[in-house]
Amino acid sequence: MPLEIEKKYLVKHDLWNAFTKPKGEYYRQGYITSDIKKTVRVRATENHGYITIKGKTDNPAIKPEYEYQIPKAEAIELLDGFTENNIEKTRYKVDFEGKTWEIDVFHGDNDGLIVAEIELLDINEAYQIPEWIDQEVTHEDKYFNASLSKYPFKNWKL
Amino acid sequence: MPLEIEKKYLVKHDLWNAFTKPKGEYYRQGYITSDIKKTVRVRATENHGYITIKGKTDNPAIKPEYEYQIPKAEAIELLDGFTENNIEKTRYKVDFEGKTWEIDVFHGDNDGLIVAEIELLDINEAYQIPEWIDQEVTHEDKYFNASLSKYPFKNWKL
Repeated sequence: MPLEIEKKYLVKHDLWNAFTKPKGEYYRQGYITSDIKKTVRVRATENHGYITIKGKTDNPAIKPEYEYQIPKAEAIELLDGFTENNIEKTRYKVDFEGKTWEIDVFHGDNDGLIVAEIELLDINEAYQIPEWIDQEVTHEDKYFNASLSKYPFKNWKL
Repeated sequence: MPLEIEKKYLVKHDLWNAFTKPKGEYYRQGYITSDIKKTVRVRATENHGYITIKGKTDNPAIKPEYEYQIPKAEAIELLDGFTENNIEKTRYKVDFEGKTWEIDVFHGDNDGLIVAEIELLDINEAYQIPEWIDQEVTHEDKYFNASLSKYPFKNWKL
């Protein structure tokens, strides 16, 4: 079973904003279904489409994940016809000390939220933390993208 | 938007059983999600896997359908990990008067049920009916495979 092992962090906005970034890529994604056990996600990037089925384990850092590339035009149709409350974000990929960090700068109803993820080969793999990384939120459900679709950042009582 | 236009019929068991059939193919399929507006189906055939998203229109014969081929081994994993109450059936494909009929002979909890489908290019397309075809059931929800998964034939009060 393919497993996604991923840790999630908040980002220090001032340091991130001052950081010289690579070009980001616009992502739109939505959920055909999303419950406590599984999600079926459709994603359209600037040039591709994807359908992704994710499960759950006892550890929120580890998820069974099956991802399939599909035509971008069909991803857009699926988003339009089969999903609601789409997530919009710009994803930046930053290489740091041998690992790639994915930084999501959210738009729309999640504007103001920036989250960074690092994918690991093993849950115990060691890695270095860039200076613009803030606290870890891997275990906080509200930062799951499927949660952000239903309960967007703009509605959180901060 | 890709549309599946399909009519569904019952089958006269005695005539079908006496018919000289081509070799059938074993299908196992289940639903990651299934509600009144959409289904996400995983299917494993003898050599392939598929993930299929179907929607609904006002006419049960017409459904938006997006189908993607995936590795058979992953289809089996998805069925095992993300679905319940799988449908098992043997599918026979019979060419008749320029059209292909797909005849599903169900097993397991739907044993005893045989259903035939014909896919059309247009809802008004004319076609010939083989002698082993019985009444049309396109508009009867209980014959949807997603329904058969939840409310199998063995539980019907006949």
